[in-house]
Amino acid sequence: MIIVLRPKASKKEESAVLAEIRRLGYRPHAMRGVARTVIGAIGDERTHHTLETLTALPQVESVMPIQKRFKLVSREAHPANSTITLPNGCVIGGKEIVVMAGPCSVESEKQLMITAEAVAKAGAKVLRGGAFKPRTSPYEFQGLGEKGLKLLAKARKQTGLSIITELLSEDHAEMVAEYADVLQIGTRNAQNFQLLIAAAKTGKPVLLKRGLAMKIEEWLLAGEYILSNNNPGLMFCERGIRTFETYTRNTLDLSTIPIIKKESHCPIVIDPSQGAGRADLVVAMCKGAAAMGVDALLIEVHPNPKEAWSDGAQQLTLEGFAQLMRDLKPFAAAAGRS
Amino acid sequence: MIIVLRPKASKKEESAVLAEIRRLGYRPHAMRGVARTVIGAIGDERTHHTLETLTALPQVESVMPIQKRFKLVSREAHPANSTITLPNGCVIGGKEIVVMAGPCSVESEKQLMITAEAVAKAGAKVLRGGAFKPRTSPYEFQGLGEKGLKLLAKARKQTGLSIITELLSEDHAEMVAEYADVLQIGTRNAQNFQLLIAAAKTGKPVLLKRGLAMKIEEWLLAGEYILSNNNPGLMFCERGIRTFETYTRNTLDLSTIPIIKKESHCPIVIDPSQGAGRADLVVAMCKGAAAMGVDALLIEVHPNPKEAWSDGAQQLTLEGFAQLMRDLKPFAAAAGRS
Amino acid sequence: MIIVLRPKASKKEESAVLAEIRRLGYRPHAMRGVARTVIGAIGDERTHHTLETLTALPQVESVMPIQKRFKLVSREAHPANSTITLPNGCVIGGKEIVVMAGPCSVESEKQLMITAEAVAKAGAKVLRGGAFKPRTSPYEFQGLGEKGLKLLAKARKQTGLSIITELLSEDHAEMVAEYADVLQIGTRNAQNFQLLIAAAKTGKPVLLKRGLAMKIEEWLLAGEYILSNNNPGLMFCERGIRTFETYTRNTLDLSTIPIIKKESHCPIVIDPSQGAGRADLVVAMCKGAAAMGVDALLIEVHPNPKEAWSDGAQQLTLEGFAQLMRDLKPFAAAAGRS
Amino acid sequence: MIIVLRPKASKKEESAVLAEIRRLGYRPHAMRGVARTVIGAIGDERTHHTLETLTALPQVESVMPIQKRFKLVSREAHPANSTITLPNGCVIGGKEIVVMAGPCSVESEKQLMITAEAVAKAGAKVLRGGAFKPRTSPYEFQGLGEKGLKLLAKARKQTGLSIITELLSEDHAEMVAEYADVLQIGTRNAQNFQLLIAAAKTGKPVLLKRGLAMKIEEWLLAGEYILSNNNPGLMFCERGIRTFETYTRNTLDLSTIPIIKKESHCPIVIDPSQGAGRADLVVAMCKGAAAMGVDALLIEVHPNPKEAWSDGAQQLTLEGFAQLMRDLKPFAAAAGRS
Repeated sequence: MIIVLRPKASKKEESAVLAEIRRLGYRPHAMRGVARTVIGAIGDERTHHTLETLTALPQVESVMPIQKRFKLVSREAHPANSTITLPNGCVIGGKEIVVMAGPCSVESEKQLMITAEAVAKAGAKVLRGGAFKPRTSPYEFQGLGEKGLKLLAKARKQTGLSIITELLSEDHAEMVAEYADVLQIGTRNAQNFQLLIAAAKTGKPVLLKRGLAMKIEEWLLAGEYILSNNNPGLMFCERGIRTFETYTRNTLDLSTIPIIKKESHCPIVIDPSQGAGRADLVVAMCKGAAAMGVDALLIEVHPNPKEAWSDGAQQLTLEGFAQLMRDLKPFAAAAGRS
Repeated sequence: MIIVLRPKASKKEESAVLAEIRRLGYRPHAMRGVARTVIGAIGDERTHHTLETLTALPQVESVMPIQKRFKLVSREAHPANSTITLPNGCVIGGKEIVVMAGPCSVESEKQLMITAEAVAKAGAKVLRGGAFKPRTSPYEFQGLGEKGLKLLAKARKQTGLSIITELLSEDHAEMVAEYADVLQIGTRNAQNFQLLIAAAKTGKPVLLKRGLAMKIEEWLLAGEYILSNNNPGLMFCERGIRTFETYTRNTLDLSTIPIIKKESHCPIVIDPSQGAGRADLVVAMCKGAAAMGVDALLIEVHPNPKEAWSDGAQQLTLEGFAQLMRDLKPFAAAAGRS
Repeated sequence: MIIVLRPKASKKEESAVLAEIRRLGYRPHAMRGVARTVIGAIGDERTHHTLETLTALPQVESVMPIQKRFKLVSREAHPANSTITLPNGCVIGGKEIVVMAGPCSVESEKQLMITAEAVAKAGAKVLRGGAFKPRTSPYEFQGLGEKGLKLLAKARKQTGLSIITELLSEDHAEMVAEYADVLQIGTRNAQNFQLLIAAAKTGKPVLLKRGLAMKIEEWLLAGEYILSNNNPGLMFCERGIRTFETYTRNTLDLSTIPIIKKESHCPIVIDPSQGAGRADLVVAMCKGAAAMGVDALLIEVHPNPKEAWSDGAQQLTLEGFAQLMRDLKPFAAAAGRS
Repeated sequence: MIIVLRPKASKKEESAVLAEIRRLGYRPHAMRGVARTVIGAIGDERTHHTLETLTALPQVESVMPIQKRFKLVSREAHPANSTITLPNGCVIGGKEIVVMAGPCSVESEKQLMITAEAVAKAGAKVLRGGAFKPRTSPYEFQGLGEKGLKLLAKARKQTGLSIITELLSEDHAEMVAEYADVLQIGTRNAQNFQLLIAAAKTGKPVLLKRGLAMKIEEWLLAGEYILSNNNPGLMFCERGIRTFETYTRNTLDLSTIPIIKKESHCPIVIDPSQGAGRADLVVAMCKGAAAMGVDALLIEVHPNPKEAWSDGAQQLTLEGFAQLMRDLKPFAAAAGRS
């Protein structure tokens, strides 16, 4: 930690700060500069008491952390890329760019089976589909619940696809984990730490979406809740942050691909459907993500988007998805992926 | 709903849209303008299927909702102000600006009792204090848990203050409700709808903080989860939104006071401590909030902020709080409040 | 400056950084911590070459400035409040909360004179009105130009009000300064540094609006362009920043009042009309600003808002304004102002 | 325009709105729905008076525009892609992804010539370099001015590269246009409409950077200022918007590539250096942009970034740039470009 004193702090005020730093288990080191004194506090910031409370002292201008606060998710802790192998043998974080596709919500057996067959045929390895849906309004469709989970399991049996679905509630963790191969934590729950712990404890891989207003450091720290609960199967998923722009539903931050790759060993997934909010932008987003080194894509596909029970505007048709899979090939190849 | 067609949509394409609108239970009404055709769809948007999925049709340029999506929290539904009476007789939403004060976290019996006595003496009516703390990092202090709740109950007994504390987990709802007079839903859980439902079902009043990146309409809709689960004791609490500004921890949006008053009948509370992130700005924020018509203030107070286990920088001292209470009087009076 | 090295930087890499720091005129001071080495660079950051370019070295993790970059606008440079006296004797930054009111755009002699008479009668001391208007679209009304300036001068003569109007172009600086008592720099030009210099050189007081996405430090630094060009008549004006919220046109950041008061000696003005974008919120905003210690208010008033040529939605009627002036009195009094 | 009345508007209030719509030159068309009446106003919104001022009427809840406000930059106005041919024959908006590279600031003849030779050799077609620099602080290096322009002209002569440089001031328009082949309008001046007009009038192509907090519609409208002043040589340049994220300097919004391509016929350029603020992210950003269909890239390159006089952290070395050019080839090829 670096503690900056106010310009005219007295000798006595400085001593008080030094004493406080020692009391909290750090070794202080003062540098007297032209305009003010700066104190370095030496010690591991992740195991000691935080010094940020020193800003409550009137003679302290600011306190700046030096160390990164995340440990287990960091590239330093695990220099090689982590990979996650799903039951159907598909590997996330390896050479292949894995495509996860399916409807926003599971609506019916027919809708799900048609979609599953089509996306499997086009090359997807994982089927997505919401059984429990977080809805902004209590008056909107909330998902089929366990019935939806059963349909997903049936689709897995029929197509060989692995299954990813959202976990909304601590109380559902066991039930959802019984059916799903990957648990998805949605953007609104990205800092619902109790849910993260419950998801981690199921032992199933966890896809952690970035919160709408989550800084990258906070996202990495949320991931820390998974790894520190003994679940190594963490992947990060960027799905767009909230900005002032209203043309798109969110602003998809593709820079997270090289950033997560640099800071962490965990795979990075892009969800262009939520990010763009418009099917007509999804294709370009997928090409960009493939070129930038993404490990997997999470794409909404629906046999008849205009009749979808949720988020119709952003779902690709089956034909649109098959075309996208063909279009992505040269970009994956250019990135040395398949 | 208003459906805007693309400039060169054909007669046949228009008919397809009209048919779809009818199929979904609305009565369409086409207006052919200079450049494009606009269709009004008449029907209650809150009870019918949404028409936004029509944007999946290529001939549709955009779909715009007309009605507000919230019902029970709206001023239209309940023209008079709602009030919430706490066990100690204190009324939120009435003539008095209620002050809720106390430490960020309950740390020890001594810390809590000293604070409770001091804030009660200075005029606070409700004691705040976190027993379960949502922390960005899993390595930070997570709260004393039930032990903290017991200390809060003891402080209530001793001082006559009512108790507000945060509910973090569905699984704790019953336990926290046993001790608390008001349940607080934190900013990171503002769209954790399962938690909102669990909180509502306890029957205790709920203080719903605005999410870091939550639009006002979304906040009102989240409140709808409380009222539609038969709990009339909802109050909204603004605590700052996330913006590009880094001088303050968040940007406290005081315009929410007149806006919530206009759109809703529920009380509005301001939390300047979280909003400013700095004790030295809290006083000015409280004055502004009082002048603008706030119903209650939620203020962090600690006997020794520099030793606080969380968020020391933003907590007022006991003396600072007592001074604030004196300073607020003329502004409350100017606003016709006490 | 604080320079943080990467965790495994070698002795040789450290020496290279130390040498570079010395070469750039600073005295380095290394602190070897648990995980990494941190170097303090002692010297005045405002007169030396910046060290931020050191981040181009692979062994450097980050570089953090310690000093504030603004000088002349800072409270340290000038501990007392600055005041600005206008030709009609009105003092900005003194005991009185000065009200500047008038139409968004000068539209006609009749519109301006009616407004000027009414706002003067209600207690305003300064008349606002745009003669040159920055418009998002080239097809919108761009202002009456010099004709508008002449009408403002006429209104001043008739009412005794001082005049504030926007300066849009370096080429107009001389002309606008001939008519105006205060030059307004709009939000879109807040970092148009050539315009700031041109405005400063006229010698007239300058009201500097905060840019839509301007951090407080950047705003203070933009103000530095006025003071460092030998013009002491600077006032800052908050008018709302751009956030994700769409209910209001912008998010008015009232925390700027105590912040500017703390960091700077220059007066702080609030423009609630632009901030709220809605007349019905302006009144509450003004009360809040008065309570929080604002020096002046800039308010849009129009005799017939629904026929305004620009921004009708946010302009108060003449009656609305007179009522506001009466309503503000107790809040100004509570703040020890008049 | 769509005008939405409040739920309980009376017949008389409705008539007043209808009359006002007619008075302003539109043909009103009322639709009486379940909860409220909605009025369509038929007429060209871009040539008539705006109806947004109707929100000043108490019986009006909201007014929503239907038409897009931009004309000349729109894809509707000019269905084919526009191309811009520079003096050295290089075409922006054609089959080739044009690379514009060079130092942030022109610092010296040696620095510029070394860079120009190196980037030309690596395949760049345009040399960038700032002679007039907009700096947040008045105490930072402001550029070499005309001397810098002369060095750019010399580098052009020596290498055959075309020249792009920033225009900061209306007063410099003629001088800068004398030396430059493309005028760059920086992010802080993106809504400095007087400067846009001055740039357009020189007849030179204009690269318009997106403002830090500029919505896409506002950006397109700013471009309208160039085309409506009879200059067809407009290109849009995304360089990152300001968000809450602090890991990167700005958030580069790559979705602007497909969006600008869809809405406009003008070329789209990406500036990853400003967007990322870190050289180590620039390479990934360029690959993503190439895959997504960008027309040109604007990249900062410096022979010795750690000694750069401005923005060292984000400039590539000469070797780094040459490597980037090799790395980009397969992605350009995958996108059908060269």
